[in-house]
Amino acid sequence: MPVLARCMARLAKRMPDGCGACRTVTKVTGIHPAQSDLWDMSYHFSKTLQLDFGSAIAKVTDELKKEGFGVLSEIDMQAALKNKLGVDFRPYKILGACNPPFAHRAVLAEPHIGTMLPCNVVVQELAPGQVEVSAVDPAASMMAIRNAELAGLAREVGEKLKRVVAAV
Amino acid sequence: MPVLARCMARLAKRMPDGCGACRTVTKVTGIHPAQSDLWDMSYHFSKTLQLDFGSAIAKVTDELKKEGFGVLSEIDMQAALKNKLGVDFRPYKILGACNPPFAHRAVLAEPHIGTMLPCNVVVQELAPGQVEVSAVDPAASMMAIRNAELAGLAREVGEKLKRVVAAV
Repeated sequence: MPVLARCMARLAKRMPDGCGACRTVTKVTGIHPAQSDLWDMSYHFSKTLQLDFGSAIAKVTDELKKEGFGVLSEIDMQAALKNKLGVDFRPYKILGACNPPFAHRAVLAEPHIGTMLPCNVVVQELAPGQVEVSAVDPAASMMAIRNAELAGLAREVGEKLKRVVAAV
Repeated sequence: MPVLARCMARLAKRMPDGCGACRTVTKVTGIHPAQSDLWDMSYHFSKTLQLDFGSAIAKVTDELKKEGFGVLSEIDMQAALKNKLGVDFRPYKILGACNPPFAHRAVLAEPHIGTMLPCNVVVQELAPGQVEVSAVDPAASMMAIRNAELAGLAREVGEKLKRVVAAV
């Protein structure tokens, strides 16, 4: 529901510094609403590489391992769209990355969190020899969940995934 | 970032009906902030069944098919946690459900949406013969993304998943 983010951004522009709503936002979130990067967050960490598609997949898998993530699933969107719809699409794979200790803590803290696991890393070919790697920011995908413990885990896992993308 | 939802709920309680912030929220979202179910949304559609675990997986897979979803991945959390951490956990599977025409439209509208695909359906055993089925609400997991076309698709897919859960 992107209306929430849009809404906060608009509110921030309209609210004078000392208004009650601003004070409430600042008190609840610790951040003044005019510091709008909080509402403008991206939902993925991305990087473009000069690499062939297969090498990029191998490199990502390797860097994920260094941060404790195994790849539990691999979905080939190009093949799925060709097989099911007959449409041509660029090479596009979704790797489902799981860090077992974090997954365990997450599922203990929030029994339905499996609906948002594992953490996906997309590898897509932009042009021959040019590939983009994008890891989900779990703080964004789990934004709707009110659970302070989970939010902490999401931030930690997000830092790990950010390091993976920086390292590829 | 559940602070957003918490924040809106608190604001709604503090803002008098005619205040500027309320008018802005109502104008941007079409909903008065005091109608707090918008900020209180759940992130999954769930139902408890009196069924054994294997039969529940088969039933869910069958109902997904009726709404046009194939299962592209299946993650056995119980096995993963046992193998990787040596811990015992209840039977818990994550089915990655994909409706190809919707996935195609989503990836055309939002090239990085693969970081939040496929749509997961969790089947977990609460007690022997008692199983809970939970489908993600894509409108919740994709809340951070500002893309009106994607938001429309997320709502449509959410309606489909809601029907799947109602039918199992």
